[in-house]
Amino acid sequence: MTRQTVQRQRLRMKDKEFMREIYLDNSATTRCFDPVIERMAQIYRDDYGNPSSAHHKGVTAEARIREATETLAKILRCKPEEILYTSGGTESDNLALLGTLGTKRGRTKVITTSIEHPAILRTAERIAVQAGADPDAKNVIFLPVDKDGIVCMDALEEAIDDETLLVSVMHTNNEIGSLQPVEAIGKMLKAKHPDVLFHVDAVQGFGKALIYPGQTGIDLMSVSAHKIHGPKGVGFLYIRKGVRLNAQITGGGQQKDLRSGTENVPGIAGMALAAGMLYNTLSEDTERLYELKSAFIGQLLQTENVFVNGIPGHPGLSGKDGISSEELKTAVRRSAPHIISASFPGVRSEVLLHALEEEGIYVSAGSACATHKAHTSETLAAIGLPKERLDATLRFSMSVHTTREELDAVIGALGRLLPDLQRYSRR
Amino acid sequence: MTRQTVQRQRLRMKDKEFMREIYLDNSATTRCFDPVIERMAQIYRDDYGNPSSAHHKGVTAEARIREATETLAKILRCKPEEILYTSGGTESDNLALLGTLGTKRGRTKVITTSIEHPAILRTAERIAVQAGADPDAKNVIFLPVDKDGIVCMDALEEAIDDETLLVSVMHTNNEIGSLQPVEAIGKMLKAKHPDVLFHVDAVQGFGKALIYPGQTGIDLMSVSAHKIHGPKGVGFLYIRKGVRLNAQITGGGQQKDLRSGTENVPGIAGMALAAGMLYNTLSEDTERLYELKSAFIGQLLQTENVFVNGIPGHPGLSGKDGISSEELKTAVRRSAPHIISASFPGVRSEVLLHALEEEGIYVSAGSACATHKAHTSETLAAIGLPKERLDATLRFSMSVHTTREELDAVIGALGRLLPDLQRYSRR
Repeated sequence: MTRQTVQRQRLRMKDKEFMREIYLDNSATTRCFDPVIERMAQIYRDDYGNPSSAHHKGVTAEARIREATETLAKILRCKPEEILYTSGGTESDNLALLGTLGTKRGRTKVITTSIEHPAILRTAERIAVQAGADPDAKNVIFLPVDKDGIVCMDALEEAIDDETLLVSVMHTNNEIGSLQPVEAIGKMLKAKHPDVLFHVDAVQGFGKALIYPGQTGIDLMSVSAHKIHGPKGVGFLYIRKGVRLNAQITGGGQQKDLRSGTENVPGIAGMALAAGMLYNTLSEDTERLYELKSAFIGQLLQTENVFVNGIPGHPGLSGKDGISSEELKTAVRRSAPHIISASFPGVRSEVLLHALEEEGIYVSAGSACATHKAHTSETLAAIGLPKERLDATLRFSMSVHTTREELDAVIGALGRLLPDLQRYSRR
Repeated sequence: MTRQTVQRQRLRMKDKEFMREIYLDNSATTRCFDPVIERMAQIYRDDYGNPSSAHHKGVTAEARIREATETLAKILRCKPEEILYTSGGTESDNLALLGTLGTKRGRTKVITTSIEHPAILRTAERIAVQAGADPDAKNVIFLPVDKDGIVCMDALEEAIDDETLLVSVMHTNNEIGSLQPVEAIGKMLKAKHPDVLFHVDAVQGFGKALIYPGQTGIDLMSVSAHKIHGPKGVGFLYIRKGVRLNAQITGGGQQKDLRSGTENVPGIAGMALAAGMLYNTLSEDTERLYELKSAFIGQLLQTENVFVNGIPGHPGLSGKDGISSEELKTAVRRSAPHIISASFPGVRSEVLLHALEEEGIYVSAGSACATHKAHTSETLAAIGLPKERLDATLRFSMSVHTTREELDAVIGALGRLLPDLQRYSRR
């Protein structure tokens, strides 16, 4: 379906005046919390100084950053000076990989996984190319994952050698919601390979889980604001004290010369406020999201020819597997609380996505973090999804605003749409 | 004066309840226009989708970017696809320099000036270091400027050779407001060295002057939103169609893979709105600012022992030079409309800055674009300021909001403060 078709659909949609919008694409981006919008507007209005200015307006702007940093440091149980602000998750990921290159003598190898976000995958590939033309040099290794989308500890341990500089593993996969064994990796690295750096892309995990990088053996950690009901265009990189990093953006020397450029004061304050709001009610919200996820999957499994991905121990889970409600709840708790990936063989994901859109339901085909040109999902391929499911998979990603009623409406819509679409696609 | 002292002053200042604030640090950063703040809040509230999402919310977000790009392209008389969004002026400058490296066979030399913004100076130094240990290699050249702070065309022409990749010259100097011969350089390059790329750092010029990169022979041009009453954390790089660039931040492939990361939709829309507002009334505003600048300098010159910098043909202009009002007006028009640099020998700039701050007047010592640790201004040193003026110079930078009454209040404050401060400093 072309963008033009989408535009036409949109015009048609305008007629349905009272149609409710059900936004289930929160892993692509979230709506800013209202207090965050208000706070940023207030800073834009009153505290608009440049934090580098020596006068009152600069001092106030600097204070807004300090307050934000203290909030974030408290959440992460880290030191304020361990937080470096960036323009978002992608810049943080790039900085973690490119910035540590060349900081440890004799160590040039980067180990990551095949299901990372493109910000890691493409940047790791760039490092591999820069290292030279020899494809056998293997200075970048992409570890496989199992059918649950979880990186194999044995493969990781085997890949580490004396030339390994950095291991980069995401906290929560953005497409299927699989949780990586970050704590186990951190523990293993600190015990067996204390000189190897550990980077965690926590863009999908921060705001959803308690993460204490200091206790977990994490040296670097990427976070994005717009995935946690904060503003677009801002994020941070946690950098454990003592870890060396080469600045990738140089200039006025802001942020101890590690990332130059006038700080995005309103964005930073907005991000910290959003994070604070999420972590204030994290355990209740997580509990509620897990219940919603289990119930939603339970309903999906009642539909014929639907397969749910990313539930540990149950790859490609379908109604035929006869999983009990309790068993499902237990397994779901070992995945991310907010992401549900389901395959609908026989229906192209794009077609189903736009059919749901007509009902005011917004979801994603695979991940929306990449551009909208058609491509096969690297994560779905890595977990070994059969060909007929690769292009027939949707991601439903919830937020703290998601309600049971909304998910029921999605189930209702799927029930109405699927039979026709499946029949149509088979012609 | 330490930051603690500043904090104490700030507390004292709170007592002066009705004190008016006079913000003359607009070259450090500007206050967002109110409609810009409102527009961004509206987008954060309603059009919060990820432009890469295939559904309605994504399509709407993409439309907000397209509208912004059309506004900016109209202002620059360029093609929409020639605008690449970044996190600000510093990233744009870094991308222009680092992104073009290696794109032209046999061309590795970068020529810039000694009065560029640190985003260019530090990045050029980085390129010089990376090129190798041979200091004679001279792959980066920093051209001198004359006493007016204007780069010498002859020196530039002489420096260009067959290995020259890029010439980077700022449009408007951020410390003294000198205008560089950007049009002449563009013309000369296209005529004599069509293979040499031309980058212009227009962070202080965009929003203040008409700049048409296509007509001017500019290949790359950096712009920052927060210097033009737009939001912090966003900017763009104009890239002439056909100019090759290596992405410095890789990932999801946004913006034709030249700059990955979810686009800062509200920031981009806010930047374009601010630019549109400025360019709608540019000629009247520029006229008014030039009048304000001439009048303010005229009043400064009536004070003993004050020297004004950056007025072409009149380096270190003082009352003793007996410049006529008409002569001054003509000379001022050859400098930037909004920046006034003045030296007050015998008074440390920091002391005067904080004395003015107590009166609610916010100015800058040199440039505030760098961190607030004390350092000698590279621009002031380059124009050959005598030692006793280097640390005794203030920058007053106006905006479209600046009024005659505000500038009169500054002159009044200087008249009250200077005699005492000068006496004090001589003890």
